[in-house]
Amino acid sequence: MRILFAVITGKATRAAFDTLAKFYEERISAYIPIEIIAPRSESSFWEFMDKQRGRVTPLLVLLDSRGKQFSSENFAARIGQERDQGRQLIVFAIGPADGWSEEARERAGLLLSFGPMTLPHELARVVLCEQVYRAFTILAGHPYHSGH
Amino acid sequence: MRILFAVITGKATRAAFDTLAKFYEERISAYIPIEIIAPRSESSFWEFMDKQRGRVTPLLVLLDSRGKQFSSENFAARIGQERDQGRQLIVFAIGPADGWSEEARERAGLLLSFGPMTLPHELARVVLCEQVYRAFTILAGHPYHSGH
Repeated sequence: MRILFAVITGKATRAAFDTLAKFYEERISAYIPIEIIAPRSESSFWEFMDKQRGRVTPLLVLLDSRGKQFSSENFAARIGQERDQGRQLIVFAIGPADGWSEEARERAGLLLSFGPMTLPHELARVVLCEQVYRAFTILAGHPYHSGH
Repeated sequence: MRILFAVITGKATRAAFDTLAKFYEERISAYIPIEIIAPRSESSFWEFMDKQRGRVTPLLVLLDSRGKQFSSENFAARIGQERDQGRQLIVFAIGPADGWSEEARERAGLLLSFGPMTLPHELARVVLCEQVYRAFTILAGHPYHSGH
């Protein structure tokens, strides 16, 4: 299994956010291969996704405040389940500033919510990376999660 | 009104997290005076709070995953309501790694949740500062929130 992070943004990420996201991305890559893309729009994200077709069937997880909330343990269990069932790719995507289109919601395998609060893209990316890292430490029995 | 942030942690905050928290703290302080303390334990936090007694009656907001979730707009409205009713101090506190005691929950004016996921202290502090900053921009009609 591998993981693709897609952050749809027209703007450059400020350095401090980028440092933190990379801090977790490096840690995730000790567990699993990851790739990061930053499409400029939802349509260029779909273009990228369409090119992947036929090669693998990814689980497409879109961040959406109206989506499903998970505890860190249940989020880890869901990722573990996908891995154990032979899923080859999970795509985690953070949408454009004005939210995902209806088409995007319909294409998603999972709408994932970090709560009803609005977070800036840059910070949502850090939270997402931290939760994915935490998930792999939980699956591996690494003490990171128990230490909070 | 002023705001006190209390982060109960025995550990030093890593630089990249500190940079981001300070980034938002500086922006908040353009709207309202803020103070930041880092008590080493819940009991030293209560000692600090008890010393404040008689001077002002703070609204004590404890971060707790089992607490109430707010949209950013409703969170801003709640802060605005406190300010308009003459509240002099709001204390936002992030608890010890093993969670708040029952006594703490009972003393809280509000248990605030950023969702069921477990976040590291350092990152919860950044999310909290960003949401408080966002709240003041919403109350002031500043375009930060509408730009996401």
